[in-house]
Amino acid sequence: MEKSESKTKRVRLVVAYDGTNYHGWQLQDNGVTIESELNRCLFDLLGEEIQVTGASRTDAGVHALCNIAVFDTRSRMPAEKISYALNQRLPEDIRIQKSEQVADDWHPRRCESRKTYEYRIYRAEFPMPVKRLYSYFTYHALNVDAMKRAAEYLVGEHDFKSFCQTGAQVKSTVRTLYSVEVEEQGADLVLRVCGSGFLYNMVRIIAGTLMEVGRGRKSPEDVMSILEVRDRMAAGPTAPAQGLTLVRYDFV
Amino acid sequence: MEKSESKTKRVRLVVAYDGTNYHGWQLQDNGVTIESELNRCLFDLLGEEIQVTGASRTDAGVHALCNIAVFDTRSRMPAEKISYALNQRLPEDIRIQKSEQVADDWHPRRCESRKTYEYRIYRAEFPMPVKRLYSYFTYHALNVDAMKRAAEYLVGEHDFKSFCQTGAQVKSTVRTLYSVEVEEQGADLVLRVCGSGFLYNMVRIIAGTLMEVGRGRKSPEDVMSILEVRDRMAAGPTAPAQGLTLVRYDFV
Repeated sequence: MEKSESKTKRVRLVVAYDGTNYHGWQLQDNGVTIESELNRCLFDLLGEEIQVTGASRTDAGVHALCNIAVFDTRSRMPAEKISYALNQRLPEDIRIQKSEQVADDWHPRRCESRKTYEYRIYRAEFPMPVKRLYSYFTYHALNVDAMKRAAEYLVGEHDFKSFCQTGAQVKSTVRTLYSVEVEEQGADLVLRVCGSGFLYNMVRIIAGTLMEVGRGRKSPEDVMSILEVRDRMAAGPTAPAQGLTLVRYDFV
Repeated sequence: MEKSESKTKRVRLVVAYDGTNYHGWQLQDNGVTIESELNRCLFDLLGEEIQVTGASRTDAGVHALCNIAVFDTRSRMPAEKISYALNQRLPEDIRIQKSEQVADDWHPRRCESRKTYEYRIYRAEFPMPVKRLYSYFTYHALNVDAMKRAAEYLVGEHDFKSFCQTGAQVKSTVRTLYSVEVEEQGADLVLRVCGSGFLYNMVRIIAGTLMEVGRGRKSPEDVMSILEVRDRMAAGPTAPAQGLTLVRYDFV
């Protein structure tokens, strides 16, 4: 039919989501994921079996303002219109921010990019309910200056093996961080990490380690030796998922 | 018994909550409310049938950083400790921020106070999932300067009958607003209203009216005539509940 004879095109989606109610990005045998919802709603919209490819496979509970997904379709629907039509079908905790056609060979994990994650910490005597889904609560005093000094040791190209969840299968644990900022926003403390790529749980382990420095359990200089020993046990705990949000994605 | 012989004391709670999953503050025959959860958990903690009295009976879906509740108890538990013990029992979307003993005749609705509400509007082409529970989304362009000019007409003592949900039973619809601010915070537009007291749905009708001004459907000067006619039909629509948060409560 006319529809099925149309040429295939590749479409890129900018996807925002509240990760609270999902088992992360990636398809799973049991549990609804961002990817499974996108595939389901794209099938509903376009009538094709579609498997999106994601740029950052975020964990359960992690949020995104701008994750990236691509897929191929024979649909004649203009790529720019897919955002509107897809948002009508998606649950309200997932919203496409943009849809556009890209080159047929464009792949989000095979191109240079800069990703920025924010890890948000709410510091107070008691938790604040309206903040609970998007930040980590602590009643511990944190030495922000020490955390800023510690953060500087992480900037640049390093072997981040100590900041990678054990069991992750990767060829190399060397990554480059362009910046690691520690910013006070009232009672919130925001850790902002920008890099070309991240290991499994890397930002959450960085957050957990910087909080250990903030509490005085580690010194800023300890971060140097943590990097050197290449041992997950040397770093701090993995900070809880809900504090983490993918806030920016730039292709360079 | 020794416990029941102890003297009654009045305890004031500062209560924060995410209103998303509640049928408002006030006790209802069907539906869980902030008040019913407080009463249930106070009974569990103190072993007494307790009925808290609230300061602001917020609607379903409205949030609070600092609503006020008082109750009388014969418990020997120091008032300051009740916050900690009660938070262990409350659901995570309600958290006591402070508990303290007050004078036996202190009543939150019979003393001078200043309440500050914020109504948050998120302006973008598409909704942002992590903002959806705590703001109102609009893709309409809003003229912020016009909204600021309109807001000035609301400041001071006025008969706010046009800004009161019809059917509300009150002796007088005259209220005093100390300030009405319109503040841009990036893509968010925050309406901040401070007053001694508010009519039913008053802040949400103010927000709905200011948005009509922002969209050019009403002029800033129309707010004067809306006040004068004392008719709910003259004002704009009641803006949705989730954008509204009680952010400050001062006793003067």
